[in-house]
Amino acid sequence: MRVVVDAMGGDKAPREVVMGSVRAAQQFPDDGILLVGDEKVIERELAACGTTPRNITIYHASQVVGMDDPATFSIRQKTNSSITRSVELVASGEAVAVVSAGHTGATVAASTLHLRTLKGVRRPGIAAPIPTRLGTCLVIDVGANIACKPLHLLQYGVMATIYSKYIFGIKNPRVGLLNIGEEDAKGNDLAKETFSLLSNSSLNFVGNVEGREIFDSKADIVVCEGFVGNVLLKFGEGLSMSLLSTIKAEAMKSFWTKLGLFLCKSAFGPLRAKMDFTEYGGVPLLGVNGVCIICHGRSDSKAIQNAVRVALQLSKNKVNEHIVSELEKANVPAANVT
Amino acid sequence: MRVVVDAMGGDKAPREVVMGSVRAAQQFPDDGILLVGDEKVIERELAACGTTPRNITIYHASQVVGMDDPATFSIRQKTNSSITRSVELVASGEAVAVVSAGHTGATVAASTLHLRTLKGVRRPGIAAPIPTRLGTCLVIDVGANIACKPLHLLQYGVMATIYSKYIFGIKNPRVGLLNIGEEDAKGNDLAKETFSLLSNSSLNFVGNVEGREIFDSKADIVVCEGFVGNVLLKFGEGLSMSLLSTIKAEAMKSFWTKLGLFLCKSAFGPLRAKMDFTEYGGVPLLGVNGVCIICHGRSDSKAIQNAVRVALQLSKNKVNEHIVSELEKANVPAANVT
Repeated sequence: MRVVVDAMGGDKAPREVVMGSVRAAQQFPDDGILLVGDEKVIERELAACGTTPRNITIYHASQVVGMDDPATFSIRQKTNSSITRSVELVASGEAVAVVSAGHTGATVAASTLHLRTLKGVRRPGIAAPIPTRLGTCLVIDVGANIACKPLHLLQYGVMATIYSKYIFGIKNPRVGLLNIGEEDAKGNDLAKETFSLLSNSSLNFVGNVEGREIFDSKADIVVCEGFVGNVLLKFGEGLSMSLLSTIKAEAMKSFWTKLGLFLCKSAFGPLRAKMDFTEYGGVPLLGVNGVCIICHGRSDSKAIQNAVRVALQLSKNKVNEHIVSELEKANVPAANVT
Repeated sequence: MRVVVDAMGGDKAPREVVMGSVRAAQQFPDDGILLVGDEKVIERELAACGTTPRNITIYHASQVVGMDDPATFSIRQKTNSSITRSVELVASGEAVAVVSAGHTGATVAASTLHLRTLKGVRRPGIAAPIPTRLGTCLVIDVGANIACKPLHLLQYGVMATIYSKYIFGIKNPRVGLLNIGEEDAKGNDLAKETFSLLSNSSLNFVGNVEGREIFDSKADIVVCEGFVGNVLLKFGEGLSMSLLSTIKAEAMKSFWTKLGLFLCKSAFGPLRAKMDFTEYGGVPLLGVNGVCIICHGRSDSKAIQNAVRVALQLSKNKVNEHIVSELEKANVPAANVT
C-alpha cells in the first residue's frame, strides 16, 4: 500500500517530515511512501538523511499553504500546493492514505473536496484521543464541522465506534454525548435531539457525559460538535502545559524543592507519555473516501513515522469499508436525515 | 447591607454553610446575614457553632431543591424551597444579595424569575475565573445561557468589564472572544457576528482567543456561549484533578520518588491555591437585578465566608448600577437587538 506524506506541512517541515518518512519507509518495506513538495528541497533533505529507501517516491508540488492562509482560499488559489497534490494522489487511486502536519483547515477542505465523503456519510469529523486517568477517550469532532446537526453527531458515534474497534481493539466501545448535565433532558437543542438519536441507535450509548467525566472513563468515545471539541482540545493542551510549567517554576525556587523534583522526575514520565502526541502520530479525519491523517503542527520525525503507521492500520483494517456497511445497517430515523 | 445565604444548598450544607455564615457575620459586624432554610436545623447548627452573632437572622423555608431535581420544575413546584425564599428576600428588598451553593440551575432560574434582569440586559451570565500562568481569566458565560445570541455575548463583555474593574481592580480589561482560530473571520455564525459587534463596541476588544491562549494571558475576559463555557470549566476541573492524581500515584510507587514528592510538595502550593475555589468564594450571576453569588457544590465554610465577602463587594461597589449605565452608553447596533 502507498501512503502520501505532505513533505512541506508543519512547523518542522521539511526536515523532520522527510526524516519521519524515511523511517516509516524502512519500517514498512513492503509499502510505499510518496513524498509531495518542492522536489529540490525534498532531495536535499533525503540527502541529509544519508539514505533514500527504494520505496520512497518524490512528487513535485510548487506551492505551500501557509499556516496563516485562510483554508478554503488556499485550496482554491493554490491548486499546486503540496496538500492539494497529496490529496489528489489518494483521489486518483495512486495511494490509499494521506498524512499531513500542515494547515488543518486546508487539509480538511482539500480532503472533503477531492476525496468526497464515504457513501452515506454527511460530514467528515476529526477524532482525537484525550488521555484520561485510566486510558484515553476518543473525542469526535474536534474542528472539521462547526455546523453540526444531530445526524452528523450520530454518524460520528458510528464512525468512531468502528475506529475504536479496529484500531484500539475495544470490543464494544461505549459512546457518550458531551453535555452540560447527566440527566437525559439536559442541554441545547442539538444535544437533546442527538440524545434521542443515539438512544434509538444500535450504538453502545451510555448517555450524557459532562466535561469532568471525560476523565472518569465513563465512555470510550464522546461525540460533540466541532467548535466545542476544538476549543476543548486546545484548552486541555494549554491547561496541561500551564500546570506543569507552574509546578516546575515553583520547584526551581529552592534547593530542596529542586532536589525533590529531580528525585520524582520519573513520576512525570507516564503523564508525559500519555500527553505525547508523537506517540499516536496523528488523528484521523473520519468519513472521507480515503484515509486522511492529520498531524500536530509541531510534529517531529517520530510523529510522522507513527502517523504513517496509523494510516496503514486504517487502510489495512478496512476501516472505511466497515464504516460504509455499518452506516447502511444503522438505525437512522428518516425524519432526521438533514 | 444584608446578604441572604441559602443554608440548605450544597454538598456540605447545612453544617459548613451555617459555619461560614457565622464567620462572615463576625467578619462584617456592620452588615447582616439572613440564613434561609429549615429553622430547627439552622438553630441546631448555630448551637453547634457555639455562638450566634446578633447580625444573623433565620428565615424559615420548609423545602429543599435536591441536586437531581430538574431546575425549572423545582422552582415551579417547590415554591417554599430555601433557594426560592432566599431570592425572594432580595426581590422584596430585605437583602441586597443571595449566596447559594445549591443547585446551580435552580439558583439561576429562581434569580432570573424573581429578580428579573437589570435594565437593558437581555440574558444573565455566570462569570467564572480560570487560573492561568500569570493570573486569572474571567470566562463568561459558563452555563446560565445555552441559547446565546451575539448581543448576549456583547453584553457579557460589558458586564464582565465592569466586574473586573470594580472587583479585580483591572483598569481597562482586555476582552477576547473564545473561538477556534485567531483570524478575524474564523468560527461559526455566532462567533463571526459577535466578533463584528465586539469590534464596533467601546470595549477593549483584543480579538479571538483560542482555547490554548486562555492560559497565555491574552485577555482578562473571554466571552463564550454557556454550553461551551460550562463544558470547558468542568473539563478543566477534571483534567487538573486527573493530572495531579496521576503524578501522585506514580510518585508513590518507589521510595525515591516518594521522597522527591515530599521534598517538592511546597512547589504544588501556589498551584493548589490558584485552583482553590474556596479562595474566591463563588462566581457572580451577572445581569440580574440584585447580586447573586453561585458557590461550588462542594463549598466549605471558608468558601461561604468568602462568597459573602464577594457579595458585599459587588453591592458596595454598585457593580449593577455601573452595568446599567454602561449598557446605556454602549454602542449596540440596532439591527442586532435580538
